[in-house]
Amino acid sequence: MPPEAPKIVVIGGVAAGMKTACRLMRVQPASQVVVIDKSKEISYGACSLPYYIEGLFEDLDEVRKTPVGVVRDEKFFANCKGFEVLTLTEAVAIDRQRKTVRVKNVESGEEREIPYSQLVLATGNRPLMPPLPGIDLKGVYPLKTMGDARRILDKARSATRVVVVGGGFIGLEVAEALIHRGLDVTLVEMKNQVMAGLLDAGMAALVHRELRKKGVNLRLAEGLQSIDGRQGEVAGVKTSKGHYPADLVIVAIGVRPEVGLAKAAGLEIGATGGLLVDERMRSSDPAIYGAGDCVESKHLLSGGKVYVPQGSTANKQGRVVADNVAGLEASFPGVLSTLIVKVFDCNVTRTGLLAEEASKCGFDPVTVLVPSADRAHTDPGSKPILIKLTADRVSRKVLGAQILGPGDVAKRIDTLVAGITLGITVDQLAQLDLAYAPPFSSAMDPLHQAANALRNKLDGFMESLEPAAVYEKQQKGEDFVLLDVRSPKEYEEVRIPGALLIPLGALRGRLQELPKDKEIIPFCKISLRGYEAALILKAADFSRVRYMEGGILAWPYPLETGPK
Amino acid sequence: MPPEAPKIVVIGGVAAGMKTACRLMRVQPASQVVVIDKSKEISYGACSLPYYIEGLFEDLDEVRKTPVGVVRDEKFFANCKGFEVLTLTEAVAIDRQRKTVRVKNVESGEEREIPYSQLVLATGNRPLMPPLPGIDLKGVYPLKTMGDARRILDKARSATRVVVVGGGFIGLEVAEALIHRGLDVTLVEMKNQVMAGLLDAGMAALVHRELRKKGVNLRLAEGLQSIDGRQGEVAGVKTSKGHYPADLVIVAIGVRPEVGLAKAAGLEIGATGGLLVDERMRSSDPAIYGAGDCVESKHLLSGGKVYVPQGSTANKQGRVVADNVAGLEASFPGVLSTLIVKVFDCNVTRTGLLAEEASKCGFDPVTVLVPSADRAHTDPGSKPILIKLTADRVSRKVLGAQILGPGDVAKRIDTLVAGITLGITVDQLAQLDLAYAPPFSSAMDPLHQAANALRNKLDGFMESLEPAAVYEKQQKGEDFVLLDVRSPKEYEEVRIPGALLIPLGALRGRLQELPKDKEIIPFCKISLRGYEAALILKAADFSRVRYMEGGILAWPYPLETGPK
Repeated sequence: MPPEAPKIVVIGGVAAGMKTACRLMRVQPASQVVVIDKSKEISYGACSLPYYIEGLFEDLDEVRKTPVGVVRDEKFFANCKGFEVLTLTEAVAIDRQRKTVRVKNVESGEEREIPYSQLVLATGNRPLMPPLPGIDLKGVYPLKTMGDARRILDKARSATRVVVVGGGFIGLEVAEALIHRGLDVTLVEMKNQVMAGLLDAGMAALVHRELRKKGVNLRLAEGLQSIDGRQGEVAGVKTSKGHYPADLVIVAIGVRPEVGLAKAAGLEIGATGGLLVDERMRSSDPAIYGAGDCVESKHLLSGGKVYVPQGSTANKQGRVVADNVAGLEASFPGVLSTLIVKVFDCNVTRTGLLAEEASKCGFDPVTVLVPSADRAHTDPGSKPILIKLTADRVSRKVLGAQILGPGDVAKRIDTLVAGITLGITVDQLAQLDLAYAPPFSSAMDPLHQAANALRNKLDGFMESLEPAAVYEKQQKGEDFVLLDVRSPKEYEEVRIPGALLIPLGALRGRLQELPKDKEIIPFCKISLRGYEAALILKAADFSRVRYMEGGILAWPYPLETGPK
Repeated sequence: MPPEAPKIVVIGGVAAGMKTACRLMRVQPASQVVVIDKSKEISYGACSLPYYIEGLFEDLDEVRKTPVGVVRDEKFFANCKGFEVLTLTEAVAIDRQRKTVRVKNVESGEEREIPYSQLVLATGNRPLMPPLPGIDLKGVYPLKTMGDARRILDKARSATRVVVVGGGFIGLEVAEALIHRGLDVTLVEMKNQVMAGLLDAGMAALVHRELRKKGVNLRLAEGLQSIDGRQGEVAGVKTSKGHYPADLVIVAIGVRPEVGLAKAAGLEIGATGGLLVDERMRSSDPAIYGAGDCVESKHLLSGGKVYVPQGSTANKQGRVVADNVAGLEASFPGVLSTLIVKVFDCNVTRTGLLAEEASKCGFDPVTVLVPSADRAHTDPGSKPILIKLTADRVSRKVLGAQILGPGDVAKRIDTLVAGITLGITVDQLAQLDLAYAPPFSSAMDPLHQAANALRNKLDGFMESLEPAAVYEKQQKGEDFVLLDVRSPKEYEEVRIPGALLIPLGALRGRLQELPKDKEIIPFCKISLRGYEAALILKAADFSRVRYMEGGILAWPYPLETGPK
């Protein structure tokens, strides 16, 4: 084979790889770029696959079409972008000394070498498939590629029972998709909550409520043990606690960076298992860059390395790689582990550090839980959201947030992402000149309300505790007054077991009904009145008063309903 | 009258005044607070009034109810918040020496003096009613109070033709409300665009298109001259260009700070006409604070004073006043002139400085226009938005944005507000770890796309011009090639007059059809392909190439449709 001209070779043609190649052609149009991918289908949006399974769009090729409907195949990239894509071509080895990539034609098996001047690894991720009995049965699939989506949907059309293994965001999305398709869905999660490590237990409990309400058979703290089959087809799932018949099993227990090639070539791998890259996305070999789901990123707050594969990050990193390959200055600063997922009618999002992580990183985190409406309450589209906001006691900088509910959580998280990235304090957050009109927000935006509640806590104006802590006190049989300050009508509709009712408007006149020697924990629907009640009690010399954050809206435990 | 105990007196019981009083009772529960308001109805959300007129809610009292349905009247504040509100009580004079406010009972006319230790002016705004013939006719109303809303709706039920005077956000909201009620609506604006000073002409032109599409008879550059009546009732409106019969006229040409009392008491008034206050919201008399629509604010970018009355700002300022009155440290940093308004199916928002203002403030603004989809294109709810983003050429800091379209503009503006407040650069904006999942955003969020487009412009990778500039060239008869690189199908559906079609995929093979001696201006639907085309042309040694920003989506001028 004759030697070829020096080239920029990109391994991987989905998000990061394609972005790198496209951007490179823009900033350096004379580049010789070749993208290698072992699949036929390239440049697709994997994040849309659960929605294809749900049926939100009919043509799977939509995930690899431009917004105006052109399929992004080899021809598209050749004609519109001016570079070559070799599909069905697997990169099998990198020779860093000779600067070549050995590739194999997946169909013919033929191998050849492609020389590179600079190499970009955009090899993506690999879904974890635990080596358990039955994992190779027909009907047991991960959800990563277009092929996976096709297989799952084909099977789902005839299946009646499905087990989704894993309560991360892919598991949640696919569980919802299949419920919408009318299937019986069991979601098995090894931990005692979904989105472990991403949401606090109390917030996750509200997601659990939504899943169960929508008919998902949620099995927490159950480990997958084996999958059994019949004539090569899946028939059921055995966990540490039970057995669930299934004609379809989706394994979504997580993904790992695909770094086999990099490892074999002796490139440095980070502690997270992802390819180690510097701010300019260069690997330990200066002629080799990495981008997308195969690399690890810096966490902007902790400074540590994290593995948070995201299509959005892949796109940003691809641009940075291209600029550096072209000799420009560009760097990728890092991530905040931002994540958003729709779980039926509950939008769930988070960014930054959980309080527990923040403590480990040396911060002194203070957290508050604040429910509110996403728009003016006069707007017919107004819906509740619940914000859990964390800031550092000393610097007062916002460290993270978890937001969920039927309302607009995405706006608030993105606003926080911008703020946190630039070091916003809760005081600054409370004063942001956010856009207000009734169809979009309330005069005090949920973020302002959350920031002010946290300021009150930081400034020692008020003590409070989370529903989880109140529930624990109840379970332990502690002696305290859980004081419901809502109206009798609200109380009759739904209430927390064991709570005493004194409506806020009557509280000043009925203080003598309350004991001064016991802790009093007022609350209401969202604990705005609960907070007012705590102020009234403190002003009246009740010394042990803490309001319950979030009110009934944030209480994920059993409730009583109907007339008492 | 016996002297009373020292008190904190608040004049004005709508947004800022009530927030001040409520917060004060929380941080200093022993305070003696009295709020004075000349109306009976207090603590109402004026921003919801257009939506009451539209019919989105039936009970006008909703605007002064808590989210759980309790009317915020004097009794509510006495019982739940512990302070007194004197309604139907007008403050007629302030004696700063003796520290008293002279008040008059609106019904009985009885006057008395209330002493204060600290005084808070939250006197709000006053709608401008120009002293023109007929302005006092029945059926001619501003929209500020609950009473105004009642009068307008009463009249609207029997009216058929309405003239709204003024194309600011209240005029736009009320015009939409009355169209939804089935009325013939004429909107008269003195300037040649709506939202003058808030939106650039090209962006406003897209709002004009929406207004006309929804049936508003939009009359720009027409000054109100007189209103004529019949038997005391309004009958029509005469402008500089025509006469419009009307049985209802809404005057929404702007508001002024209500500073009569402050002026009479010798307090300093700022250049904007608003009460001058420092960062702690103190007026020129340290015992007197101001908050809400009667004060002017600092613009965070220009450093200059602006008058931007907003319910959201009033609430924030009220909290700051209360904290300072209570002896705590608190300051209000300023505003970005953020504004959002729903205009039928077009959401319109803006923040920061327009390019023209930015230049006057000593910045070197560079602007780009970028349309995109607010969610992944596979999501059925995906809708377009158009971002106009401005940054400073030297510091690369974002200076402002205008965003409009049927899609989610609110999220993007709030994210920018957080960023701009903390000095974000376009480079940082492009790297924000925003929340991505198909139901909420696209992998490259519209903000990332806009930031990258602006970076390309700042970095000299690409030259471009706005549709307005292209249109002007056409009107002047300049010789250039307007190159449409969309598909033949798209071209057949709708096209810009005079444009030449060469689809992007065919461009590399058809370069010889284009003249090298003329300027070539490629575009597409949103000018992503237009940008690619410009790159291809530049790489092929076409020297005068600029793409048209925003594509057809941002073109507010006439279009051709149907087969050519």
